Amino acid sequence: MPESAISESHTPNSVFDVAVVGAGVVGLSIAWRAALRGLRVAVVDPDPGRGATYASAGMLAPVSEVTFTEEPLLRLGLASLARWPSFRTELEEASGRAVDYRTDGTLELAYDSDDLAQLDDLAAFEATLGLRVERLTGRECRKREPMLAPSIRGGLLARDDAWVDPRLLAPALCAALARARATFVAEPAVKIQSGLVRLAGGAVRAEQIVVAAGARSAALLPGLPVRPVKGQILRLRGPRGFLSACVRGWVHGVPVYLVPRENGEITLGATMEEQGFDPRVTAGGVYQLLRDARDLVPGIAELELAETRAGFRPGTPDNLPLIGATGLPGVYVATGHHRAGVLLSPVTADAVADLLTGAAGPPLLAACDPARFE
Amino acid sequence: MPESAISESHTPNSVFDVAVVGAGVVGLSIAWRAALRGLRVAVVDPDPGRGATYASAGMLAPVSEVTFTEEPLLRLGLASLARWPSFRTELEEASGRAVDYRTDGTLELAYDSDDLAQLDDLAAFEATLGLRVERLTGRECRKREPMLAPSIRGGLLARDDAWVDPRLLAPALCAALARARATFVAEPAVKIQSGLVRLAGGAVRAEQIVVAAGARSAALLPGLPVRPVKGQILRLRGPRGFLSACVRGWVHGVPVYLVPRENGEITLGATMEEQGFDPRVTAGGVYQLLRDARDLVPGIAELELAETRAGFRPGTPDNLPLIGATGLPGVYVATGHHRAGVLLSPVTADAVADLLTGAAGPPLLAACDPARFE
Repeated sequence: MPESAISESHTPNSVFDVAVVGAGVVGLSIAWRAALRGLRVAVVDPDPGRGATYASAGMLAPVSEVTFTEEPLLRLGLASLARWPSFRTELEEASGRAVDYRTDGTLELAYDSDDLAQLDDLAAFEATLGLRVERLTGRECRKREPMLAPSIRGGLLARDDAWVDPRLLAPALCAALARARATFVAEPAVKIQSGLVRLAGGAVRAEQIVVAAGARSAALLPGLPVRPVKGQILRLRGPRGFLSACVRGWVHGVPVYLVPRENGEITLGATMEEQGFDPRVTAGGVYQLLRDARDLVPGIAELELAETRAGFRPGTPDNLPLIGATGLPGVYVATGHHRAGVLLSPVTADAVADLLTGAAGPPLLAACDPARFE
Repeated sequence: MPESAISESHTPNSVFDVAVVGAGVVGLSIAWRAALRGLRVAVVDPDPGRGATYASAGMLAPVSEVTFTEEPLLRLGLASLARWPSFRTELEEASGRAVDYRTDGTLELAYDSDDLAQLDDLAAFEATLGLRVERLTGRECRKREPMLAPSIRGGLLARDDAWVDPRLLAPALCAALARARATFVAEPAVKIQSGLVRLAGGAVRAEQIVVAAGARSAALLPGLPVRPVKGQILRLRGPRGFLSACVRGWVHGVPVYLVPRENGEITLGATMEEQGFDPRVTAGGVYQLLRDARDLVPGIAELELAETRAGFRPGTPDNLPLIGATGLPGVYVATGHHRAGVLLSPVTADAVADLLTGAAGPPLLAACDPARFE
């Protein structure tokens, strides 16, 4: 995190235009876009970029992530994906830092015949949505990625899906914010009121407040329908070019992904649906990830296991985020992005910046109204 | 490591009676036993207790470790095991620290019918050696250890095997040495000559020198037949009493062990026979350990995976250690303990202390002559 990420100037006399509570990619993106519109911004977080962002893979993959019941989420994801190239260019210029944005395509693989049947169903569904995917044979998959297992039955290539390294993205956003003269308050928020973010030993005053505290947002806005969804990831360290594409797959019905970085690291993850805030990395979680990833890419056995980590995605009842006004005047929320926080950051940030400057949010966001479950 | 583990007083004028190079359990035990005999001792190691000792499980298991070709090693192990109760009592008194010495028995388990056949052969061989082991059915094994898998086919109970926590043992030895006014020189040795341990920027003078630098001893004594044998271990964190015995097993012919600590931690390990000094923990190594351990004790999947680590055991051509004089006058060696460094520390330390004080070493050590391969 940047040198300026220190607590400063939340004196009683300082009133910000906007206080953003939570410095994951969603909160940081909102703060940055708000600062670009000339608002005086404070970011309140004891440890910017170290929550769910730090444990995420950074896939910008609305096409590969599509499931049959989630067309609104797909539309939102495609809208955000379309903003990513300019978002990335502006951010890298504003921060002077690269975010390892990659567009080498996502390969969605099937391991056994049941997995293949699921893949074919998905391909057919994606075709009806007009999405650009190509069905590849196992041989064609291996031609693109020689490290894939001989037993891979087939795959889908989503050329438009991309990815980014969240551990470069969050520091880049912090650096851009520091250059935009935003204030970092390195303390946890304990209570939100209109115009006031209460800290353990003080407060931050702001005309408007955005709660973007991920799975912990419900502790600040009681009744908010967001819950922690634990995920475990591993970082492997391999030679550069070990994989070129982002590789996803089902192995006996269980999803797994391997996301390669420019420096040779690979983020290996899967969706786990454990509830609660238990931060332990479990032996069983690591075992399952390694087992399924080995089935897709046997050669990972030789790579260094450099890190194990658990994080908490903010889940909602319908898997769509919560973006918009709350019952408290001047207090907005932007959370519930579940597995898609990195993907949805540009569209979320621009929409919230619209709300903060009195503009109407984009129509697409109607489905994300935080009050929709009431 | 103790507060006194700092570089001090290796000035040109200071001549020690003994310099021990290497502060793993073997070197520290030798230094301690030598200090108890009134010798002025220096211990030379940049990071005491953090080599193979730190990655070891601390099993005192000559019976469970027996293999068909290694009767001399078994005899040496039994002799050292017999010294452990008094060694432990003296050390805990001398250091004021506990070492988590456990005598709850070792269960050697068979997972499939081939493993069971191997276990029965071993039991028969052990009977011919007069060792005290009991053959248990799968049901009897589970009665002793309820967390064992229902599929366990049978087991051997070695009541005389014990274990200790190496991460408590090494600091206890350091503390006992500090109380005995030994000197710690926290630098790596670069060259050994008679009377002189050369450091990068200085030297330690001593009448006699003992090289106990584990797998790195050959770098100090060229031609010494010791090589690194990589091992990978995991530390799991569970509730106290999750396991009470030390659990070892073969799963489809591959050995695995789970060693419980008083604080609920479990050291999970296996013998890997990789060569060379590659310190990376590999995805494949961790996967194999978790897979085989889950087969024996399925409930470990719920435990925290707290640590992954690799270490280098000092291997020799015949799996017996190298203990005794070298070609350099006044220079001794004590290394090559392979998987049995913790077990063999008491017998090794007493034997080397004998040599340093001009006594004859025990006859048992004839098999460990460093010159036996010449």
